[in-house]
Amino acid sequence: MTDEKLSRQIDFLVEIDTLKTIFRRTYVLGTDRNENDAEHSWHLALMALVLYEHANKEVDVFHVVKMVLLHDIVEIHAGDTFCYDTRGNEEKAEREKQAAQEIYSRLPDTQKSDFIEIWEEFERGETPESRFAQSLDRLMPLLHNYHSGGRAWREHGITRQQVLQRNAHIADGSKGLWDFAQKLINDSVDKGYLLP
Amino acid sequence: MTDEKLSRQIDFLVEIDTLKTIFRRTYVLGTDRNENDAEHSWHLALMALVLYEHANKEVDVFHVVKMVLLHDIVEIHAGDTFCYDTRGNEEKAEREKQAAQEIYSRLPDTQKSDFIEIWEEFERGETPESRFAQSLDRLMPLLHNYHSGGRAWREHGITRQQVLQRNAHIADGSKGLWDFAQKLINDSVDKGYLLP
Repeated sequence: MTDEKLSRQIDFLVEIDTLKTIFRRTYVLGTDRNENDAEHSWHLALMALVLYEHANKEVDVFHVVKMVLLHDIVEIHAGDTFCYDTRGNEEKAEREKQAAQEIYSRLPDTQKSDFIEIWEEFERGETPESRFAQSLDRLMPLLHNYHSGGRAWREHGITRQQVLQRNAHIADGSKGLWDFAQKLINDSVDKGYLLP
Repeated sequence: MTDEKLSRQIDFLVEIDTLKTIFRRTYVLGTDRNENDAEHSWHLALMALVLYEHANKEVDVFHVVKMVLLHDIVEIHAGDTFCYDTRGNEEKAEREKQAAQEIYSRLPDTQKSDFIEIWEEFERGETPESRFAQSLDRLMPLLHNYHSGGRAWREHGITRQQVLQRNAHIADGSKGLWDFAQKLINDSVDKGYLLP
């Protein structure tokens, strides 16, 4: 270990503190404040530890955990894009790719390439681990919306059809979790949390 | 998988959302708000992924990550205890032990016992993984204090001696990180962030 290597690693760790200031549309339950990306990422990691048995294919759980811990770090430079914002989502990929280069360049070279690779694998969603990680990333906002009486959905006038379409590929990572999610969505319409 | 099993797992995951409302003494950098336990746990997990090579002994990194993701969940029921609050820390162990039973009982039995075991291993600090996880948990507030001009230290009138004493066992998990931490502490005194 050289002092310079450790300095770079610490510098990266201090820089990513900013993820705690990037806010999402969902609300922390029982509060009036939006959730930030850092606490969201922690929650997904816990989901992975608890729910991995429901993945369609056997997954390397540590790999899933790494993906969800890292998956939003690019938003430090690229910002959060609301999943129902069509235009924002078109430019998102390019913006995030550049952000990844900037942020991870603070790390020593090997770690930089490892972390970017894990993030890109998550984005592509072609492996069992990335499909399952994406399923968790979709399921979590459903849980938040359901347990906050559909607050973010109602604020943005979201319909059942939009939610079904947006989240259908939860099934690619976990058919069990998609079955569960559909029950939640239907129940949300019945309860008036979500437009029919 | 039974529906009932999945329901219990989801119930646990919704319950622990509350960790996002348990606040610590440290500040999120560049902001006027205290950091919460969920975002802190995310940050420690990233530290483990980035810094594991500096552990005194070779560690199972996934095990360290699991520990830091789980280590504060008991505070949902037991609350955060400021590390320089002597009386609070005396009762802390018993309060947290009871909290662990309550919170983890929401999970299926095997997961309940696995999670409690990981948390207890962290608390005991007898394995290379738990020692390293504890080192990270100590180092992070030093980084936060240093990069926020010693804000939480100054608010509570903390001295160099208190910080050295409190954090000396960073060396049990990582001599390299303790060397680094001591430089940070001395520099904090020079800069007036910390009382001599």
